Amino acid sequence: MIEPKTLPGFMSLLPEDQILFDNMKQVIKNNFEKYGFLPLDTPLIESSEILLAKSGGETEKQIYQIKRGDNDLCIRFDLTVPLAKYVAENLNNLNFPFARYEIAKVYRGERAQHGRFREFYQCDVDVIGRDSLNILYDAQMPSIIYNIFKELDIGDFTIILSNRKILIGFLQELGLENISADILRLVDKIAKIGQENFALSLEKDYNIEKSKIEKIVEFITINGDSQSQFEKLEKFDIQNETYKLGVEELKTVVEYMKVFGVPEKNFEIRLSLVRGHDYYTGTVYETFLNGKENIGSVCGGGRYDNLAGYYTKEKLPGVGISIGLTRLFFQLKENGWLKKQNGAISKAIILPMGQDTLADSLALSNKLRENGINVTVYMEDKKFKNKLAYAVKSNIKYAIFVGEDEVASQKFTVKNLFDTTQSQQSVDDLIKILKEN
Amino acid sequence: MIEPKTLPGFMSLLPEDQILFDNMKQVIKNNFEKYGFLPLDTPLIESSEILLAKSGGETEKQIYQIKRGDNDLCIRFDLTVPLAKYVAENLNNLNFPFARYEIAKVYRGERAQHGRFREFYQCDVDVIGRDSLNILYDAQMPSIIYNIFKELDIGDFTIILSNRKILIGFLQELGLENISADILRLVDKIAKIGQENFALSLEKDYNIEKSKIEKIVEFITINGDSQSQFEKLEKFDIQNETYKLGVEELKTVVEYMKVFGVPEKNFEIRLSLVRGHDYYTGTVYETFLNGKENIGSVCGGGRYDNLAGYYTKEKLPGVGISIGLTRLFFQLKENGWLKKQNGAISKAIILPMGQDTLADSLALSNKLRENGINVTVYMEDKKFKNKLAYAVKSNIKYAIFVGEDEVASQKFTVKNLFDTTQSQQSVDDLIKILKEN
Repeated sequence: MIEPKTLPGFMSLLPEDQILFDNMKQVIKNNFEKYGFLPLDTPLIESSEILLAKSGGETEKQIYQIKRGDNDLCIRFDLTVPLAKYVAENLNNLNFPFARYEIAKVYRGERAQHGRFREFYQCDVDVIGRDSLNILYDAQMPSIIYNIFKELDIGDFTIILSNRKILIGFLQELGLENISADILRLVDKIAKIGQENFALSLEKDYNIEKSKIEKIVEFITINGDSQSQFEKLEKFDIQNETYKLGVEELKTVVEYMKVFGVPEKNFEIRLSLVRGHDYYTGTVYETFLNGKENIGSVCGGGRYDNLAGYYTKEKLPGVGISIGLTRLFFQLKENGWLKKQNGAISKAIILPMGQDTLADSLALSNKLRENGINVTVYMEDKKFKNKLAYAVKSNIKYAIFVGEDEVASQKFTVKNLFDTTQSQQSVDDLIKILKEN
Repeated sequence: MIEPKTLPGFMSLLPEDQILFDNMKQVIKNNFEKYGFLPLDTPLIESSEILLAKSGGETEKQIYQIKRGDNDLCIRFDLTVPLAKYVAENLNNLNFPFARYEIAKVYRGERAQHGRFREFYQCDVDVIGRDSLNILYDAQMPSIIYNIFKELDIGDFTIILSNRKILIGFLQELGLENISADILRLVDKIAKIGQENFALSLEKDYNIEKSKIEKIVEFITINGDSQSQFEKLEKFDIQNETYKLGVEELKTVVEYMKVFGVPEKNFEIRLSLVRGHDYYTGTVYETFLNGKENIGSVCGGGRYDNLAGYYTKEKLPGVGISIGLTRLFFQLKENGWLKKQNGAISKAIILPMGQDTLADSLALSNKLRENGINVTVYMEDKKFKNKLAYAVKSNIKYAIFVGEDEVASQKFTVKNLFDTTQSQQSVDDLIKILKEN
């Protein structure tokens, strides 16, 4: 006998949780499609040559490698590399701007730890341009984030955004372009290490003059609503071209985000936002659940200059966002923030009172299904209390009892198992009730 | 530069085909849920110990193995072993009969060959009982098959069914129980080798007397509608208990299939149906598309006595079916049997006539999306003919032009890109048209 256990870092849910998970996945998918994004379903396995073209040491260590004969294969660790390969492979068959989504599992052999996953869902949307891509596509992304998290209904949230060009241009203006990458990395950690240690490190590790450090700190802590932040920025009177382009882009993004219907209370410019990834070159996003910031960003992304430089000479700029659904679901569940409603597939469960009313029960189930209603029929020949216990455990809202009297009168006893009320209903009324609930 | 190519045996679709594929997947999923099956999403990777517990030599050779440190891991090659492990692992948290579906990718390192896939979708439904499972669940499966293939709308189809106990009992009655497994294997190949070679092999390879061979051939070629087949069976006057139980079960299955609404023209009893798998112990199914039998069975399955004997001492009988969607889709596409309708995600694409009507275009898109309509907005600053070319290539039915006149009158020009008709519509009428189409 082999003990049936799931590997650490792999999520395995009971059906009622799986349903909640799938509901969240469906909300994300529906919203991606609402903006016309096209579905992709890329292979999970690629040649190592393709998958590791870009990756550095850290990623490579986490990759699941497969050895099969002479083939050197890998399992994907994200959906971006498969997208890059796909776009390069199908360059002449795609319609640019190419807007695709992919919701699928990726794999990273991370250190096993509570809440860290080796198999997890990423939900990605990206728009890819050929040669160029209008900045307006950067304004569409927060609108997608906004609609998804509004519909997921897991509490208030804030989309944090910035444009990397602003900080980079600002550092150029200060004559710090040589150590710009180091400073960005430090800025990225500011929430963790604190403002004081940040300033200290700039002074001790990089020998930056105090006046410049003060200016940097003042700059990255600019706050207020977007309007007043842009006003404060103007007072810095910076002439650097990269900086000016960045501010211009961010202004356009903010202006059109509002047109897309994202309320001011749901977003915030934060110039200290740089995101770890080196490949972002403009707009960057993160999303936090208000009061639940400790679980980290629940959706991030940004603009990049070139998606697929390893596979094609064509320049393919793009903008995208990603939701790490497995981790998000885990955090919601772990913290008791999951709403338990809708934890069932069937709207009703039909319980034949005896085996003699089985055929009538099935006839009823046919009618309900023809009307688009998901329904379970309990078909074991058990005592009625066992049937009812099964129904209650199923998490299904309505139980329909089919006995000889019901068959004769064509009025069925319907019990709401959540509030235990019950009534007699004709088939037509039954259909109406089940469609509404 | 690395050449971006997909590995042989891995399907990678262009968006318009991906949409058709996903539509088929959705039809299957909807029908599984219509019968109240619960979703599972099991890990793709398991320890080799678990995944290889049951498998024989052939499967093992095809398995993708992963070596990571001390761990010996495998990628799943079907969804049945993961189900067995899952049920054994969660025995006390599941509600029996446990009805689950899983639609997911599985992996087999088959010999690369046109039309053979190493990564492919299986769409599985199974009902698992604890200790026992009513035969009526065997009658429900063909009803699910029927509804799926009716809705997939890929032509007429026939569900072939039998019960393995019948043939096994019949061979026992003939005193051939010792070579029963060999004969079943030969029966399984009869369509390939032909009736004559079948009879010849029984004579030469197994020394079976001619009279018995004639009886076997007569038996397995019984045809007609189900009623007359059962009548013909009675004339054999067989007293073997296994046989009688098999006939009884098959009668019940056929009787209740009809109650479930499966028309007689969509199923056929074929006593020569045994299916390769050893673990089926009763009802077996296959499904063929009429006139397209050459592509093989598109949905098969059956009843088994014990799902998870390697992982638990509990007896878990079940019945299930599986659709190999990747292969089915490939065959339909390859043969030109795919219907091309609905090859788009968006119902409409909005084309701003100039950048000055962009904000109005976005406001219109917001309204449509709020009404549940998927819509794309073209946001590049290109010439109008480029915008229109993009729209046409997108496969989206309606293009909506937003110019200054349209904004002023709030009547939008709507062009049906399929038949090139166009009209002026208010927002409300637009919503109505797009919802209906």
